[in-house]
Amino acid sequence: MNAPHPPEPAAFDPRILRRALGNFATGVIVATASDGEDRVGVTANSFSSVSLDPPLILWSIDKRSGSLPVFRRASHFAVNILAMDQIELSNRFARPHEDRYAGVPWRPGLGGCVLLDGASANFQCERTGILEGGDHWILVGRVLAFEDKGTAPLLYHQGSYAMALPHPHRRPPQDASGGDAANDLRARLADHPYFLMTQAVRSYQESYQPRQIQTGWRPGEARLLMILNDGPARDMTALTRQADMPQHQVEQTLDLLRSRGLVERTPDGEALTADGATQVCGIWAMARSHEERVFARFERAQVETFKQVLRGIIAAPA
Amino acid sequence: MNAPHPPEPAAFDPRILRRALGNFATGVIVATASDGEDRVGVTANSFSSVSLDPPLILWSIDKRSGSLPVFRRASHFAVNILAMDQIELSNRFARPHEDRYAGVPWRPGLGGCVLLDGASANFQCERTGILEGGDHWILVGRVLAFEDKGTAPLLYHQGSYAMALPHPHRRPPQDASGGDAANDLRARLADHPYFLMTQAVRSYQESYQPRQIQTGWRPGEARLLMILNDGPARDMTALTRQADMPQHQVEQTLDLLRSRGLVERTPDGEALTADGATQVCGIWAMARSHEERVFARFERAQVETFKQVLRGIIAAPA
Repeated sequence: MNAPHPPEPAAFDPRILRRALGNFATGVIVATASDGEDRVGVTANSFSSVSLDPPLILWSIDKRSGSLPVFRRASHFAVNILAMDQIELSNRFARPHEDRYAGVPWRPGLGGCVLLDGASANFQCERTGILEGGDHWILVGRVLAFEDKGTAPLLYHQGSYAMALPHPHRRPPQDASGGDAANDLRARLADHPYFLMTQAVRSYQESYQPRQIQTGWRPGEARLLMILNDGPARDMTALTRQADMPQHQVEQTLDLLRSRGLVERTPDGEALTADGATQVCGIWAMARSHEERVFARFERAQVETFKQVLRGIIAAPA
Repeated sequence: MNAPHPPEPAAFDPRILRRALGNFATGVIVATASDGEDRVGVTANSFSSVSLDPPLILWSIDKRSGSLPVFRRASHFAVNILAMDQIELSNRFARPHEDRYAGVPWRPGLGGCVLLDGASANFQCERTGILEGGDHWILVGRVLAFEDKGTAPLLYHQGSYAMALPHPHRRPPQDASGGDAANDLRARLADHPYFLMTQAVRSYQESYQPRQIQTGWRPGEARLLMILNDGPARDMTALTRQADMPQHQVEQTLDLLRSRGLVERTPDGEALTADGATQVCGIWAMARSHEERVFARFERAQVETFKQVLRGIIAAPA
């Protein structure tokens, strides 16, 4: 699955190309507009800042999108950058055929565009161009006004929702009390539990990842297999919620897993095949053995205290 | 700083607009090309997938970039999506005037494009368009070949490098042993230390963030203030490394902090002003009080064990 793909454009399996493109992590936007009659909004991750002077941004919309006619008629659009807690909003504006704005708090913006409450930022734009982009149109807009809340963002990576964590360069805390007297910040961080948690998460992820990659499955694919291991899934919405993936991504991933013979359609819904169940066993065994390796140096009581404190932090009221 | 910005395009402070656009998290790419004579590469985050059929992608390049002539002459370009451990590469290809490829392992690609070892994915493209984009050109390419390693990505958010963490929906672990007998996965996760760590990080971040936002400073800005609190900085490269930010972002952030009177140029280098030092005191006091609030429910010995286990995980060999 990691082999290079040859220069034969016609031969690309779009599922495999999409999977490769998923390596580029992005935020998630809901682009909105209205033509005076209809009010539309679509979830996208194909957003890009283009220019500061003049202030230009772009995003792309599927040519088959039902919302396209309104975006073409509207003179303006808004881009709402979703915050970490707006998964439901992302899923809602990604699904077709629904009154997407029902129950969603919003305010009107310039030229009929729509500003969603709770976004990390929004940009109200006058549309300055619609460019040809294969199966999509590229919409370019000039920013006329913006709001910047700065809240933690919702991320999209390898088909799954994700969150951003400050990049913790690996700096062994042991060094902190070392020779460099001026290094006060480093000493403070080395004793700061949140900083230590982010470093520990990175360290664990870093050592686990080579094994995860060897399985050939992306985290979202492995997660779907593990969920189906608990029993067949009939309700696509529930599966979407459980997997932390958008519904179209769940469908595409099931499609891929079916083509590899790991999942099949049954009267009870999507179900693991015997091969699928074997894969899940392997994934769990690998996760367990890695966990044991990392925690072998600690006493049982220490690990229990560790988990207890983690559970306490998780349960803490905001 | 969170107030809406009015629709007066000419009045935008580009620093404030750039700061708002930074809410959209992205991966980091190095785009490469050669014209047979010169070999160029530039770091960018303005990458976007456009179309699957035909397979099209785009990215934007500053019109003032010294590498632009080669990208214009070259028939092909490659996009390398950087992995989490490629910060140095990102910084190297973001700085002008240097033999950027010295010591960097690479392979030649189609039409003279350059594939960097260790990237999460790469896409070799034939350039199909150069579109007008204000102070940037938008380069569109048709994907001819690609590689997909799937490694954890380097992220860029609010001016700082970041990493992606699977989105941990807040599901109280206490529920795990509850009524739903089929929920085997949930029960397993509720006892899995890595999953608990990611949930705890999210929970802590979630409760800390409203306070962080109230300060008006983005994490990267606060980090620079805290670093300068240890003493003036003369060496911009060292500061860049310490801050986990690209050099141009460090410079832009210092510029912003100077304009707010928190940082000043001194014979010893960039230094905090008295106002800057007061800000740092406030940030540390806030961090400490939040930490105390979260950990108040635990006994001192529990917290010590907790930190000890975290340090052990951080120090664990990969």
